[in-house]
Amino acid sequence: MERLKAARRLIHYSSSKFLLGPRSNPTSAEHPLRLSSSGVCYWCPYIADKKGRFGGTLWDPTAGTGLGKTIRIQNRLFGSLAATIQRNPSFSTLNSDDISYFKGVLGEKNVIQDEDWLLSANTDWMRKYNGSSKLLLQPRRTEEVSRVLKYCNSRSLAVVPQGGNTGLVGGSVPVFDEVIINMASMKNVVSFDKVSGILVCEAGCILENLISFLDNQGFVMPLDLGAKGSCQIGGNVSTNAGGLRLVRYGSLHGNVLGIEVVLANGDVLDMLGTLRKDNTGYDLKHLFIGSEGSLGIITKVSILTPPKLSSVNLAFLACKDYSSCQKLLLEAKRRLGEVLSAFEFLDNQSLDLVLNHLEGVRNPLPPSMHNFYALIETTGSDESYDKEKLEAFLLRSMEGGLISDGVLAQDINQASSFWRIREGVAEALMKAGAVYKYDLSLPVEKMYNLVEEMRIRLGDSSKVIGYGHLGDGNLHLNISTPQYDDMILAQIEPFVYEWTSKHRGSISAEHGLGLMKANKIFYSKSRESVQLMASIKKLMDPNGILNPYKVLPHSLSYS
Amino acid sequence: MERLKAARRLIHYSSSKFLLGPRSNPTSAEHPLRLSSSGVCYWCPYIADKKGRFGGTLWDPTAGTGLGKTIRIQNRLFGSLAATIQRNPSFSTLNSDDISYFKGVLGEKNVIQDEDWLLSANTDWMRKYNGSSKLLLQPRRTEEVSRVLKYCNSRSLAVVPQGGNTGLVGGSVPVFDEVIINMASMKNVVSFDKVSGILVCEAGCILENLISFLDNQGFVMPLDLGAKGSCQIGGNVSTNAGGLRLVRYGSLHGNVLGIEVVLANGDVLDMLGTLRKDNTGYDLKHLFIGSEGSLGIITKVSILTPPKLSSVNLAFLACKDYSSCQKLLLEAKRRLGEVLSAFEFLDNQSLDLVLNHLEGVRNPLPPSMHNFYALIETTGSDESYDKEKLEAFLLRSMEGGLISDGVLAQDINQASSFWRIREGVAEALMKAGAVYKYDLSLPVEKMYNLVEEMRIRLGDSSKVIGYGHLGDGNLHLNISTPQYDDMILAQIEPFVYEWTSKHRGSISAEHGLGLMKANKIFYSKSRESVQLMASIKKLMDPNGILNPYKVLPHSLSYS
Repeated sequence: MERLKAARRLIHYSSSKFLLGPRSNPTSAEHPLRLSSSGVCYWCPYIADKKGRFGGTLWDPTAGTGLGKTIRIQNRLFGSLAATIQRNPSFSTLNSDDISYFKGVLGEKNVIQDEDWLLSANTDWMRKYNGSSKLLLQPRRTEEVSRVLKYCNSRSLAVVPQGGNTGLVGGSVPVFDEVIINMASMKNVVSFDKVSGILVCEAGCILENLISFLDNQGFVMPLDLGAKGSCQIGGNVSTNAGGLRLVRYGSLHGNVLGIEVVLANGDVLDMLGTLRKDNTGYDLKHLFIGSEGSLGIITKVSILTPPKLSSVNLAFLACKDYSSCQKLLLEAKRRLGEVLSAFEFLDNQSLDLVLNHLEGVRNPLPPSMHNFYALIETTGSDESYDKEKLEAFLLRSMEGGLISDGVLAQDINQASSFWRIREGVAEALMKAGAVYKYDLSLPVEKMYNLVEEMRIRLGDSSKVIGYGHLGDGNLHLNISTPQYDDMILAQIEPFVYEWTSKHRGSISAEHGLGLMKANKIFYSKSRESVQLMASIKKLMDPNGILNPYKVLPHSLSYS
Repeated sequence: MERLKAARRLIHYSSSKFLLGPRSNPTSAEHPLRLSSSGVCYWCPYIADKKGRFGGTLWDPTAGTGLGKTIRIQNRLFGSLAATIQRNPSFSTLNSDDISYFKGVLGEKNVIQDEDWLLSANTDWMRKYNGSSKLLLQPRRTEEVSRVLKYCNSRSLAVVPQGGNTGLVGGSVPVFDEVIINMASMKNVVSFDKVSGILVCEAGCILENLISFLDNQGFVMPLDLGAKGSCQIGGNVSTNAGGLRLVRYGSLHGNVLGIEVVLANGDVLDMLGTLRKDNTGYDLKHLFIGSEGSLGIITKVSILTPPKLSSVNLAFLACKDYSSCQKLLLEAKRRLGEVLSAFEFLDNQSLDLVLNHLEGVRNPLPPSMHNFYALIETTGSDESYDKEKLEAFLLRSMEGGLISDGVLAQDINQASSFWRIREGVAEALMKAGAVYKYDLSLPVEKMYNLVEEMRIRLGDSSKVIGYGHLGDGNLHLNISTPQYDDMILAQIEPFVYEWTSKHRGSISAEHGLGLMKANKIFYSKSRESVQLMASIKKLMDPNGILNPYKVLPHSLSYS
């Protein structure tokens, strides 16, 4: 009876032939202050000037329901980590000759010593990490980056490469007094080939600007992120950013065709190929993709972009159990195959949290006992056909018992409201109180076991929720508590890392290691692998000046 | 009038609703002797025994029209290269203690000293390269590979990792007396996850066996090659093999999720992740993908496989000029987007050659003045829709003048006959006389200029033809002459490499460098990049025992 009712609803919702244009990210409308300059928060209500400095009216993190608690937790976590790090004594400290040299190379106005500006560049957007750099440099050309690094290397001056400063693991801000090399001035598109879809651009291009540029050319970036209004393509590549389109287009290791990179000693490696196939020697660019600026500074990127497809459809579905979600994913891959562009999931507890803490969000399905929800998005080239195909798939899945209920978005507003639920979970968590956040990759079939085990482990003391990119095997495990509690943390860690390690998962699916998890790498990588990484780091950056204290465990990366 | 006629033909051919199953490679039927054991030719009429040895009746390379000339050219080219290489004097020579040690580790029967067996393993399938190894080892487990390499490293015994020995650049056979480590005994599937489509298997698995295994599970390998009956997945990954599905599924850098690899010193690097996302440190597996066994021996592979889609369609089309081919590719990417699975092209001269030299091949289009031909294949999940979509695209392209004529295959036999034309070009070239072969990656818009410039350069002395994977920017430039001629070679080289270099192309799109092009790497890679490759090689294999004389220029890799 229930299934029949659901099937009717699906049919009812899908009777209109209205099709969506490309999905607009709902966070865009809600966060009009997302800025394109460097170092500026794109989610939160900061007031920033044109240079991206936020010396004006600042967001008060202790205002609002529960937000202060979250910030406090984060500071506390960082505090304990910071206590274990010592400034590498082999690094020099900045002097007036250095400043003069940089002014000679870059011009006076690109050598920034302004305190307000430096305050923002020393701080990550979560305000979790704070460095004390006294200098920010803004090179405009590869040759300038090269001269700067050559000089810094000769002087043993440590540097932090910085893009949009939107990272979540403290990778893009100084730990001590490192010189910040900000790439925002290198923001030109170098070339675009409309036959091959290959874009070549400078590292400082804002992702959203590239998306717009390509949209005008009839192409899309194979990468889309919540942070697109601020993040830069050089940072995206350096951190191997994942995002919303990975399930369709794969990772940047597959899409980036070439890079230009400046090594610690100032040597420029021109690997800026624009070829889909090139088997001439070791493919060194992959070393830099995801190395978080610790092996070189990426100055240009060549990337393969797919043609824009006109038809986008979105369904919000309910499943009775996690096993049904898995089966639905398998069926979606097989039957929607070439048009499937997103497969996201959230559990009942995630939805409850969103409905309780975010205003204006409603459950598109009538309240019921569904345990899981899935969002399935398709992107294709044929409007009427693609929708029919999705509808047929959904009806079949409903008849097969994989779906308990579901709705198909009829217009872009409905699609935005569905995405708002999935993308609103993080915000709802912030409003609900203190939160312990984990971004994990796990084998899909085991992924939700961790959520269930954590629930048993923590009992009534906390609310454990699971959601994320099911299509990519990426779980966002979050533990929400009224307030920070050492006892609870001790029950979560290291259990969560050990569990992930035991199931051959990754303790960082898409955020990188940065400063936050540099010492936790062994949970996901073998001792031999990490040792080889450290040897490669030593080979390529013998003085260790590039983004020190990050990525690799401190015991190996400096002493 | 001509266009109208063509349009009618297209409609006529496409009126039937018969759809193709997955395309079977026509070379499979024509070459029943493709064997799954190591070191055996899969195209040519060798007679081999079960072990893959070809000590029996051998193919006579001097028999048949023109074949002998080709072999002679190849031997001649190699001869001049071999003269420049000296055996690295720091390598030891094999003694009886070594043999005893290996027998203790691997068991007597896996330590091969049989002369016939060694003759085949010392020779590449083109019979272009011949080593003089006295020992072939067949480890069955990673631990055995590890113990063997640790020992070889301590004794400075050089080794050649060998998979199916189907490479085209002399990368998989010894140059001198290197110990051959053949991976054929490591041929087990370790696991397959039907939800995620992730396959984990040992390196010695024959590609075709994996394709069959996955087919039974409802999945496909993202890789397909002419050599699939012999080549092994470890070799595919080590050489970053390209093949027929690259335009759809991308390169192995995107599809390989993890590897297990044994380093020169015997250390086992377990990077056998089965995760789509893992941002914990440097992604070292990419160093081994395409490094042709010179940094380590891959023992296991984890690979993401897409679900099998049921509907395959193929069109054989004519274009009046190269510009139309390019525009057609752009339109195909945009309008067929998610179902496009191959876009191949050949010029008029290529087709002529096939029609003149291969029996039973006919032009599916009436003889006319078309200058170029394209094959477009789609693979999707909906039989009736996919064909309609392709038909609509072809009619539109014909109306727009991009296509001059065309036919849609109505059954698997017709599809095979279309593929036979494209895949028969190499065979026709062999039959036509001497041939100079170049496998180049070039920007699509400039690709055919090289063919035209080469024609002007060589005049009537030679037949210059161009064909290849247009969708991947991969040109197979071939120069056919009645017989080998030093004067002609001097007009081709180094011009072809310089031209490719000038246009930022790659002198090896998918075949690798191996021994053949190790010294030509600078045409495609900068001095700084090659220097870094050499430093990484030195770091990871300080004694240089892994596949010596290959990949890197001899001036850098040993002295």
